[in-house]
Amino acid sequence: MLQSALFTKTRKEAPSDEVSRNAELLIKSGFIHKELAGVYSYLPLGLRVLKRIEQVIREEINKIGGQEIWMSAIQDKVLWERTDRWDEEKVDNWFKSELKAGGQVGFGITHEEPLTRIMAGNVKSYKDLPTYAYQFQTKFRNELRAKSGIMRGKEFLMKDLYSFCRDEKEHEKFYEKVITAYKEIFKRLGLGDLTFLTFAPGGIFAKFSHEFQTISSVGEDTIYVDEKKGIAVNKEVLNDEVLSSLGLSRDELIEKRAIEVGNIFKLGTRFSDALNLNYTDETGKSVPVFMGSYGIGVSRIMGAIVEVLSDEKGIVWPKSIAPFSAHIISIGADDKALKVAKDLHEDLNKKGIDALLDDRAEMSPGQKFADADLIGIPYRIVVSEKTMKADGFEVKGRTEGKGKIVNREELFNILKS
Amino acid sequence: MLQSALFTKTRKEAPSDEVSRNAELLIKSGFIHKELAGVYSYLPLGLRVLKRIEQVIREEINKIGGQEIWMSAIQDKVLWERTDRWDEEKVDNWFKSELKAGGQVGFGITHEEPLTRIMAGNVKSYKDLPTYAYQFQTKFRNELRAKSGIMRGKEFLMKDLYSFCRDEKEHEKFYEKVITAYKEIFKRLGLGDLTFLTFAPGGIFAKFSHEFQTISSVGEDTIYVDEKKGIAVNKEVLNDEVLSSLGLSRDELIEKRAIEVGNIFKLGTRFSDALNLNYTDETGKSVPVFMGSYGIGVSRIMGAIVEVLSDEKGIVWPKSIAPFSAHIISIGADDKALKVAKDLHEDLNKKGIDALLDDRAEMSPGQKFADADLIGIPYRIVVSEKTMKADGFEVKGRTEGKGKIVNREELFNILKS
Repeated sequence: MLQSALFTKTRKEAPSDEVSRNAELLIKSGFIHKELAGVYSYLPLGLRVLKRIEQVIREEINKIGGQEIWMSAIQDKVLWERTDRWDEEKVDNWFKSELKAGGQVGFGITHEEPLTRIMAGNVKSYKDLPTYAYQFQTKFRNELRAKSGIMRGKEFLMKDLYSFCRDEKEHEKFYEKVITAYKEIFKRLGLGDLTFLTFAPGGIFAKFSHEFQTISSVGEDTIYVDEKKGIAVNKEVLNDEVLSSLGLSRDELIEKRAIEVGNIFKLGTRFSDALNLNYTDETGKSVPVFMGSYGIGVSRIMGAIVEVLSDEKGIVWPKSIAPFSAHIISIGADDKALKVAKDLHEDLNKKGIDALLDDRAEMSPGQKFADADLIGIPYRIVVSEKTMKADGFEVKGRTEGKGKIVNREELFNILKS
Repeated sequence: MLQSALFTKTRKEAPSDEVSRNAELLIKSGFIHKELAGVYSYLPLGLRVLKRIEQVIREEINKIGGQEIWMSAIQDKVLWERTDRWDEEKVDNWFKSELKAGGQVGFGITHEEPLTRIMAGNVKSYKDLPTYAYQFQTKFRNELRAKSGIMRGKEFLMKDLYSFCRDEKEHEKFYEKVITAYKEIFKRLGLGDLTFLTFAPGGIFAKFSHEFQTISSVGEDTIYVDEKKGIAVNKEVLNDEVLSSLGLSRDELIEKRAIEVGNIFKLGTRFSDALNLNYTDETGKSVPVFMGSYGIGVSRIMGAIVEVLSDEKGIVWPKSIAPFSAHIISIGADDKALKVAKDLHEDLNKKGIDALLDDRAEMSPGQKFADADLIGIPYRIVVSEKTMKADGFEVKGRTEGKGKIVNREELFNILKS
């Protein structure tokens, strides 16, 4: 894509009321636009990243048998009253609205209730189980404060997966599969080394739930990490009994701030009991379905990546989710460099490598380099008098200090690595 | 995909309050679930279709230079007050809600206002124009009645494209390009022959707007079609002066009911004036940007296709958007046919042809055939004692009366055609 055609521009300043580093950088680089406190729109570069994060998650969830669906945002009050999650005193972050035709609706804060009802219409026998359904859907939460950019918004994109099993044993097996899938997802997203499986409060049906926490000084949670064992404990459940049951020792734990990028819950029969999701087992008996839920904050991950991987110059996107693989920059007043750069751009396209070409005429090399660092595409490729004389291209990784001149073949090998 | 693993089941009945043919068929075949009047969730088969429709539209809009974005659903009241579209007396189908932090928000009925504001932060000079941005986003409209299934919901998926030009002349050029792109989209979606470019009321800035109307007895609009010229006039603007200006004659027009599947509007400077979207022209003068908007109802198209292309046995999906390309059905009590069917399924997958394999053990051939007709996948492939004896497969197009036995190579050629 030609950068001159991109309608967004980089800018020196984010809105003065923006206090989070992630939103500040994403606004300055033109990835997102702030509509209201905690409400953001995704511009061309930002949507590309969001879609790539989504696709990584989709691939891994499909591998463990998830079936993708897309549930409505508008929620049926009746359904949520049956699980006692409608009343403001129980759940205080609903956006509710009046129907013209009479009655009240809410905008989905989560989707256990509607999916349980959908399953109640489809699951009859033990032969229909286990089954797993997930979606990428906007969640609406009426947050009182919104100071974390796209990491905690009033409107955000979430992947939510739900499992429906015959019993707890079958549930446990899938639960472990999700843990493995989540680890692979965070690894692919470039957060693997910073993200820890964390023991957290379990609720009625389990001793623990599990969170995936990414270490960051701006995280809202406090966790205690055992780096050798690669696991952590949320402060909320930290006590001697828990530590001994997990085989952990206080001396080995390091206190860290962290961002909750995923969580998984054993729901048991809380929702199937309330909404009559039962199946007939081998003996003809009616049994409630055993459920689990598994979330990943898609837009939150985008924010978390900006928080933990950016540097003083701007964003540093992992290759797996960068808006483009390469950022070609042509330098020089005449059209010679631009022509070579355009040829390269076309060549890369043909090879399936998507590149952004900075063809902007009035920009100085310094401005172009600063914008490239701010936008954070993994490789910068310079075409200039100097590189043309050497019959090559200058390529530099986003976090490398200096570029090197390589020929076309070497360049392709670097970009494909 | 194995049909036994699909969590949805076909069913004999749709909810008794469902009056539309499209929702009735889509519910019975397991594509969608009704949450509330006018609110539907998309189940695995339904989401596949919706995504394919989306992808056809995306490809054609990208070709004419559209840049994809994704704006928030939550809307800033202040913005809509500036264009006088907040007040209930002016716009009566908002879903509005109270912010916990104080103040009121709406859920996006359309997105001219927020995009105009975004552009005001990016467009400065004539060099930044023209530019085009679009999105696939849920729209929320507080409809009093919802009797048309997914053709008119309280929550629906729309593609909305907006153009930003220097002047009316530049706008007209892009407007014509959109007409051409829309024609290609409806052709690819299998609605080409039934869909007419229709002259409709234009508003302040234009004599006409243009609708794309698909002929259907359940359509909400009345249009007058000149079949020879391939255009139509909406009843709302039908008069002698309009006919003569379009070179149409009353005698040549046929009255039809039709579904509005797309519309395009010249917005002029209505929004840029109200929201200060100006650019500096070549002479240094500040000029308001000239805008257009172009909608296509993605979920509505899915409903329209069901309305106009289904038959008494069920849905008939066009190949371009079918949930799968082929529906393999294995028949026989022993596992022999199932094994051959699974081999074929794997073979097709390798060739990039996605198939649904009906491997359900307890179903009679009659039930399987009835389900296949209801679901509406373009090709049904039967594997049975008879076809194995002939060393082939029985293939039948969804609307064909009888299948024919072909060998593997012939089968691939048919499926790839």
